[in-house]
Order: sequence, then C-alpha cells, then structure tokens
Amino acid sequence: MNADFVNPFIISLLNVLETMAQIKLQVGKPKRKTTALAQGDVSGLIGMVGDNIKGSMSITFEEGLALDIMQGMLGERPDTLDAEVSDMVGEITNMVAGGAKKELAKKGYDIGMATPMVVSGPEHTINHKVSGHKMIMPFKGEGGKAYIEICFDK
Amino acid sequence: MNADFVNPFIISLLNVLETMAQIKLQVGKPKRKTTALAQGDVSGLIGMVGDNIKGSMSITFEEGLALDIMQGMLGERPDTLDAEVSDMVGEITNMVAGGAKKELAKKGYDIGMATPMVVSGPEHTINHKVSGHKMIMPFKGEGGKAYIEICFDK
Repeated sequence: MNADFVNPFIISLLNVLETMAQIKLQVGKPKRKTTALAQGDVSGLIGMVGDNIKGSMSITFEEGLALDIMQGMLGERPDTLDAEVSDMVGEITNMVAGGAKKELAKKGYDIGMATPMVVSGPEHTINHKVSGHKMIMPFKGEGGKAYIEICFDK
Repeated sequence: MNADFVNPFIISLLNVLETMAQIKLQVGKPKRKTTALAQGDVSGLIGMVGDNIKGSMSITFEEGLALDIMQGMLGERPDTLDAEVSDMVGEITNMVAGGAKKELAKKGYDIGMATPMVVSGPEHTINHKVSGHKMIMPFKGEGGKAYIEICFDK
C-alpha cells in the first residue's frame, strides 16, 4: 500500500474533526501494523469494495477524545459513551470515508464504501483480516488518542 | 428487508458451523432491531456494496460458543479468546458472507463483500448505522449465544 491510498484518509479525518468540532489532532508516524493493536473505547468501521480491490477502514477513539469531539460539535459534553456518541462516530466514519473516496477517485481508484458500524466497549481491539498490508496511523488530541487503520487485500 | 435477503445468511451460518465444527445452533426468531443490542465477546464484521445497495453484516459470539467452535474445528480448546480465535471468527465471517453472496446472486442481487474485521472485547456492542431496517437473528448453542445482524441502506 502506498501513500496514494493512505493520505486521503489522514487528510479527511483531520479536515472532518477541524471543521465539525474545531479539534486539531497531531499526526503520528504511519506504520505497518504487525502485532500492534489499536485499542480504544469506541470505533467506527467501514468496508470498501472496488473492481479489483477490497478492504476495510476503522477509526478508534479513546473515550476522552470522543467526548471532546461531542463537546466541540454540540457544545455539550456527555458523561459517558452514550448512543449519541455512537451516532457521532458513525457520522464521522462516513464523512472520513466519503472524503477519502473523492480523493481516491481523482487518482483513478473507484471504491464503493459500505455503511458504517460502530463498536462500543472498553479497550476493545479490532483486527482487519486481509491478505495485504495493514497500515495503522496514530493521532493525538488533548483528550486522548485515535487510530485509523486501512487495510486492503492484495 | 425481506426473507430473500435474510435467509441466505442464516442458512450459511448454520452450514458453516455444522460443516466446519460439527456444531448445531438453534435458530431464534429474527426481529427488527430497535433498541436491542447484540452483546458478545468476539464479533466478525463485513461491509457489503452492490450497485444500488450497501450495508453491513456482523456475527457476534459469546466466549463459550466461540471456544466450542474452536474445539470443533481444531480439536483443541483455547483458554481464552486469543489470536487464533480471532482468525477463526474472521474466517467464519468470510465463509458466511461468501455463502450468502452466492445465494443472493441466484436471486439477482450482485453484492460485493468487503474484507472481514474482528472485534474482541468483553461484552462489546455493535451498532449498524444504516437508514433502512436492521434485522437481528439470535442463535443458541450449548456453549452460548450468537447473533447475526444484517442491515442495508434504503
């Protein structure tokens, strides 16, 4: 997997969070995921299907950062990861995937995005089952960390 | 969503578990999911994209049933939901989606399946973010429960 594929997702997440919640994230170094697991409290996941390619993306948030995003978007901070936070994570996942899809289309990749799913549960892990490489990108906000993972079949 | 869509997934899960692990599940009554959440310890998720349709499927297992399946498939029962169980759940998710895809193709629905993702974490929940109906189907094995959820956008 090359930067052509990875960068649209990174840029899209940064854009979405800054536009929607006035939150700026520090971008860590993307790396190939081997044993490393993104661990977090709420995650948005989406499947991707193209003509000769298929894969998956996830965005995992630590609780503190997810609540910061809610506060930035709605002006109110929930006490816990409730149903509204789940909706918000689904919405962000959709927007990030949609933004990346547009950029990928400009580069000649026509990729259909499935519908998002949101997983809630303390310190859950997500494992993308693909034959190709897995890229994991760490982000850091004031309230906690986030991880994007992007994986495609060979 | 009608039985055309739902039944291929139910039949496929029953086939896969009986063939691969000699495990028979009791099928509960499918229902539209409203507030009900499938709660389990390990889940396989997959996105689906067709020409005019997109959606998602998840299969959630309680720990006891997941370990029973491992024992049935490999003859050995792991102590915990380890990396091998995660691989097995990803494989089963792929097989169930593949089996359902074939059946749906016979009915004229051409749906591309993304790559599976596996979520681990005690009592996590999964929320499918779609505009259409969500169907949840409960299953019961000797070692615990399982749930399939199938959701499509309108």
